[in-house]
Amino acid sequence: MPTLRDVGELEAIRLLTRGAGRADVIVGPGDDAAVLRCDPGEDLVATTDALVEGRHFLPAWLAPAERGARLAAVNLSDLAAMAARPRWALLSVGARAEHEMDALLEFQSGLAASLATEGAVVAGGNLAAVRGDEWWSLTLLGSVARGRAWTRAGARPGDLLALTGRPGRAGAGLALATRDARAAGDDGRRGGTPDARAAGDEAWRPLLDAWLRPRARVAFALALAPAGAVKAAIDVSDGLACDLARLCDASTVGCDVDERHLPADPLLERAAATLGIPAATLRFGPSDDYELLLAIEPGRRDACERVARETETPLAFVGRFTSRRGELSLVAEDGARSPIDPRGFDHFAGGR
Amino acid sequence: MPTLRDVGELEAIRLLTRGAGRADVIVGPGDDAAVLRCDPGEDLVATTDALVEGRHFLPAWLAPAERGARLAAVNLSDLAAMAARPRWALLSVGARAEHEMDALLEFQSGLAASLATEGAVVAGGNLAAVRGDEWWSLTLLGSVARGRAWTRAGARPGDLLALTGRPGRAGAGLALATRDARAAGDDGRRGGTPDARAAGDEAWRPLLDAWLRPRARVAFALALAPAGAVKAAIDVSDGLACDLARLCDASTVGCDVDERHLPADPLLERAAATLGIPAATLRFGPSDDYELLLAIEPGRRDACERVARETETPLAFVGRFTSRRGELSLVAEDGARSPIDPRGFDHFAGGR
Repeated sequence: MPTLRDVGELEAIRLLTRGAGRADVIVGPGDDAAVLRCDPGEDLVATTDALVEGRHFLPAWLAPAERGARLAAVNLSDLAAMAARPRWALLSVGARAEHEMDALLEFQSGLAASLATEGAVVAGGNLAAVRGDEWWSLTLLGSVARGRAWTRAGARPGDLLALTGRPGRAGAGLALATRDARAAGDDGRRGGTPDARAAGDEAWRPLLDAWLRPRARVAFALALAPAGAVKAAIDVSDGLACDLARLCDASTVGCDVDERHLPADPLLERAAATLGIPAATLRFGPSDDYELLLAIEPGRRDACERVARETETPLAFVGRFTSRRGELSLVAEDGARSPIDPRGFDHFAGGR
Repeated sequence: MPTLRDVGELEAIRLLTRGAGRADVIVGPGDDAAVLRCDPGEDLVATTDALVEGRHFLPAWLAPAERGARLAAVNLSDLAAMAARPRWALLSVGARAEHEMDALLEFQSGLAASLATEGAVVAGGNLAAVRGDEWWSLTLLGSVARGRAWTRAGARPGDLLALTGRPGRAGAGLALATRDARAAGDDGRRGGTPDARAAGDEAWRPLLDAWLRPRARVAFALALAPAGAVKAAIDVSDGLACDLARLCDASTVGCDVDERHLPADPLLERAAATLGIPAATLRFGPSDDYELLLAIEPGRRDACERVARETETPLAFVGRFTSRRGELSLVAEDGARSPIDPRGFDHFAGGR
């Protein structure tokens, strides 16, 4: 099978960036830079995120197309958290010369398809040769009505905390999979289908999928933006507690999370029991779910719930922001308050 | 000395992206994405390029600040080739946990200073942990009056070929340095100052600097753009012949290069003699000089020369585009024509 070495840099870049033809791409891949047409009255929103082999994925755990989809999702989620419409991406890849072209094209298909679902195209790229671990870095550009981007900084005491999906699932999936992989003495590099193995019980699949195949909440964010209900937003890329703490920090508020209103998640609870840890540790701890945390103006709750129904997005109102700056509390049914540990995940502080 | 592991991901990103405060950065680093304000009537121009340890640089050859400057230059050059004004950058880094913070901050200073010289700031970033070689990927965004970006595709037969600087010097510097490093049995990783060593003769420094410390022709491009003289442009990132071939290919033209008008370069000729290869091989062969190749409307030559003088940019008119599609010829003083080999550099085809 042909490899990158056989095909060459330029042809590989051409293949990695194909399909960018559309009206807002004035000059696409193949020139020194891409020329893109913004609309008057819009701001540009830009983010960058990367996947690194051996760190964010192991080849045996994610097929190339899934890796592309994941790279799209982690960047799309950042734009969702700003209420921005995804439009253009620039792809920077470090790949080994012996990388098979078929795998590269599958990656490209997965990336392009996931971006296309949310309206974005790859408008440019770069390909560098590496000797060791491969990496895939994407810069995603989007647009938003001028001055209307959501930020982390707008929450006020009294605003409601709303939550899409069921954060904690991705971390639970990772914990289950790596535990089983360790038990099997396999670091994931030797092939096989770790999902099935990790499963033992196929019932874990929703948790494994939450980790391996996240979907960004772009459609929900774009549908919700016109309601003017969102005061602040962040995506859950490091864990519910960690990202809530960041939003509170940026907004100089605190937050009471109401235990009763957290979305029920029996599967997560079963995973916690299997792993021998409290469910709350999974729910609040390190987990890259790419769900949204939102600060909602109290009077607009109904509008949000309507948009959630219309876009089939699970949305729960789980708490309220307070003036107790930096204080995150879990409030039990009996009114007892306990602090939430805002620890997240630091890539440099040792593995999880 | 503290390392990335000591400081942590978030603080390191904060340090890497500091100094973005200005009016067109509505939301800077520290949120899920950056919010940037385009001007009405402008197009966005976007490029991405990366430096990979062991491939584009060896730690002993470039100090961290120079590495930052180089990463800026290779991206700035792409915008210069589109006549775009550099504005915002997003930095994606793969670094080892034991990377020293001092070195990271020096890199940041070099990058930020070089970007600032041309009007750009780092508006966002990402930092991932790697186990092996480190990499530094930058996405640079700029703006240009709507529909006025230069591309590679506009050259017509009869247009003049103009050239900034003295392409080939970077490749000559690399050839001299690696030859001397090989002679010393050193791959550049063991420290020392290869410049001085490669020099043996300090006189090589301009060639070594052309390779290690390129400067993009942004100011010249921006000053030249309003003259409306440029029909097509490309930067010399892979070599004069290779990049000229690309421009001709995109414009469906050929080019006659007039040997008499090539800028004199006695130092390059001396390097060729020392290396035992023809000077033309250095001049036309693989070389990342980040100079500009321009197709100029014949009647506007004077305007270009005026801008070159005003911006102190060496500019030579060295040939003429022809209707002989894809044909690159070197025309000697006696009128004899010889074909120019359009070979460039392919990262995956083995070393140069």
